[in-house]
Amino acid sequence: MANTTPGVDPAQPLAAHVVNTGVADVPAASLTATRRDVLDTFGAMLGGSGAPGIQELATVTGRWGGKEEASLAVLGGKMPAHHTALVNSAMGHALDFDDTFDKGGHIHPGTSVLAASLAVAESLGGVNGDELMLAVTLGLDVSCRLALAPDKDRGWHRTATFGIFGATAAVGKLLGLSQEEMVHAFGIAYSQAAGNRQSIVDGALTKRFQAGQAAHGAILSAFLAKEGFTGADNVFGGEYGFYSMYQPEGHDLSVICQGLGKEFMGDQMSLKPYPCGRPTHGYIDAAIKLHHELELYRNAMRTVVVRTDPETHSSRYSVSSGIVRPRQQVEAQFSLPYLIACGLVLGEVGIDQITSFGKPAVLVASGQIQAERKEGMPKGWGEIEVVCAVGRSGSAELEPPSGSPDNPLSINQLQEKFRDCAAHALQPPTGESVEKMISLILEPGVMADSRDLIKLSTSRAS
Amino acid sequence: MANTTPGVDPAQPLAAHVVNTGVADVPAASLTATRRDVLDTFGAMLGGSGAPGIQELATVTGRWGGKEEASLAVLGGKMPAHHTALVNSAMGHALDFDDTFDKGGHIHPGTSVLAASLAVAESLGGVNGDELMLAVTLGLDVSCRLALAPDKDRGWHRTATFGIFGATAAVGKLLGLSQEEMVHAFGIAYSQAAGNRQSIVDGALTKRFQAGQAAHGAILSAFLAKEGFTGADNVFGGEYGFYSMYQPEGHDLSVICQGLGKEFMGDQMSLKPYPCGRPTHGYIDAAIKLHHELELYRNAMRTVVVRTDPETHSSRYSVSSGIVRPRQQVEAQFSLPYLIACGLVLGEVGIDQITSFGKPAVLVASGQIQAERKEGMPKGWGEIEVVCAVGRSGSAELEPPSGSPDNPLSINQLQEKFRDCAAHALQPPTGESVEKMISLILEPGVMADSRDLIKLSTSRAS
Repeated sequence: MANTTPGVDPAQPLAAHVVNTGVADVPAASLTATRRDVLDTFGAMLGGSGAPGIQELATVTGRWGGKEEASLAVLGGKMPAHHTALVNSAMGHALDFDDTFDKGGHIHPGTSVLAASLAVAESLGGVNGDELMLAVTLGLDVSCRLALAPDKDRGWHRTATFGIFGATAAVGKLLGLSQEEMVHAFGIAYSQAAGNRQSIVDGALTKRFQAGQAAHGAILSAFLAKEGFTGADNVFGGEYGFYSMYQPEGHDLSVICQGLGKEFMGDQMSLKPYPCGRPTHGYIDAAIKLHHELELYRNAMRTVVVRTDPETHSSRYSVSSGIVRPRQQVEAQFSLPYLIACGLVLGEVGIDQITSFGKPAVLVASGQIQAERKEGMPKGWGEIEVVCAVGRSGSAELEPPSGSPDNPLSINQLQEKFRDCAAHALQPPTGESVEKMISLILEPGVMADSRDLIKLSTSRAS
Repeated sequence: MANTTPGVDPAQPLAAHVVNTGVADVPAASLTATRRDVLDTFGAMLGGSGAPGIQELATVTGRWGGKEEASLAVLGGKMPAHHTALVNSAMGHALDFDDTFDKGGHIHPGTSVLAASLAVAESLGGVNGDELMLAVTLGLDVSCRLALAPDKDRGWHRTATFGIFGATAAVGKLLGLSQEEMVHAFGIAYSQAAGNRQSIVDGALTKRFQAGQAAHGAILSAFLAKEGFTGADNVFGGEYGFYSMYQPEGHDLSVICQGLGKEFMGDQMSLKPYPCGRPTHGYIDAAIKLHHELELYRNAMRTVVVRTDPETHSSRYSVSSGIVRPRQQVEAQFSLPYLIACGLVLGEVGIDQITSFGKPAVLVASGQIQAERKEGMPKGWGEIEVVCAVGRSGSAELEPPSGSPDNPLSINQLQEKFRDCAAHALQPPTGESVEKMISLILEPGVMADSRDLIKLSTSRAS
């Protein structure tokens, strides 16, 4: 159970946890889970390096120059750590292909934590694989724990708003903050906690920027705390603390520290098979299943009906309100009709389907999809029914989406995903570099200095 | 009435207003009001240059180096514009001596707007006084208008959370953004909108940092928008827009654009006579009045009772819950018993009383103060009653606090406040420089380039 004291803000036990936990205190399985998460997240950075908005972020921060202490992934070039972390973290989130903690409102904790950690580790130099993985483990743990406390999903982009604290924990660990400094770092991070899902509704590039701003703010917070700057102490439970301000409808602070130091939430991460919004994954699984069962690569469809529970139908994830013909990347990442159509027609949703979305057969199928609500079904229920012009027809119910901890991608699938992401990088690294990165990340004892990893990402295939 | 269209997000008319308004469109009285606000805000920067936390902010941002494009006030040295704005804006808020818009939840709009404007204007070069004042006028206008919409004061530090939009407007104006870019700049600013009053409750230095983060985020937003980066369009009224996320209990979007282009909110600013929380000002006025009436500089007090309406008594501004003996600056700025005691015993609350707070007579009086609630009185009512050991006794009711638009400081008082702030700077500028700054700010046509102002602030008296 939680090592919390009544009346003590969760910032205190969380800070103690971060400051006092060493590599030896983390179960081997959790460290392995972190390595997989890092492989997945770093792959997402490679794959997102050429995505819309990333060059703009690099240009704006780059014009200010400064200490060349941390390298941009893939793009190369060094900037101050907080600027590098901003760009690299946005890069890791750009494809919407990065980790999620489904129980915690689909927060994507990894990219802000890893980008902030890599940038600070590079500026420090000599941070080895164990130290990097420990910082990331603690960062993931803090972000996920905080994401469990709200009763309601209000519309924050938790990746940013909640994720800044995990990124701060990771950076604070690397900088060796004291417990008191760590609490202040959380308080300074709280001052900057922001990020909303209006960016998704409006298809804005700030969706990826927000992951970056969390990494950026985390570095500023930890460095300021180390310098003696103070933030609020009652960060999470105070009268105007984080949860009373951000989750006024209800929250449960007691869950934050349950099992602290025993369970590490990084091993409950979902690693995505598809580069798009996590709530679309179950639909895509069902669509791909039908693609194969009904041989839709050769059978024309007459009708496609997507039935969901009433609540889902009314929400913004309802099929009826989805965008049928995405015009840009952020729309494609969240357009349920389009993504289902990809699954049905192509049998796959990969980076190419999100990057270019003009295939006539897919767009026709996307336009065919009818949404229906089925009364009495529990939240999360759904099915896709396809009637073919000739031949068999059939339907598939939604199951827990692939990539979840209880239905995870295999280590081979994760490595294939990494290679695929690398191949989609703005400048693809050499095959040799790709394999070395995989080995550095996955094999204990191989990464002598985290700088080797970021350097390999800037190698070029030709 | 507002030039708003139903269903159009207020971001659109606000952006049009910022983009299309020229100096000739602003009434002379409003430009004069802006000049006074700038004098007051720049003075607060000078006075706050040596305050706790400012050097730490300069050290952390300074370690990253970068393009030397914008000068730190007083401290000198140049940094990238966004870093400079962060430090200068925090400096302007450090004494809590800067402007407030009392109707809008005591937002302090000036320091973020001015610091961001000065930093960007310096980086551009050749921005004259009219252009600077126009940008500041529009920035103040936007921040204040947004601060009018909430029904409830929830505990945001509006200076930061709402103020980032005004600072973004000012920077966007200086950079010459198009209307579409300006909307995106607001959207990118929205991604970063944060800042809370837990910092006040806990006496944290983040209170001043938050004003700085608004200026910093504004510059990032405007530069990103100019580069083509996109933010949410439905910034304020969207499903997950600013008001539904930050003010879920209620808000009225229709007031934001009322009188847009006709009234400029910068002329409704309160400029403070005392360097401490605005809600304490009425009490200090009454205390100073009693100091003179009862000759408390020579008459000992037997009892002091502060009576307030029931709601005030229960709130954190109640006298009973106030800190009696502040231990650091942020506590002194909000300790009602201490501030009232200064007024009663010393007849003044100036920078020195907030910076050093060990005077035995004041601390004795602070400990004497009893808080009582008076049932049936309307919110905001209050009185101080003093019974002297010998001689006369008396009481004073709270009146609208001095420094309000309807009870403003005279231009001479404002100039004296500026000189006093300059004398309290970390390195006081020469008397000649002080007078030149006053002239550059107040007299139309004198400021040929905003860089002259910031340069004068770094002159040293010895």
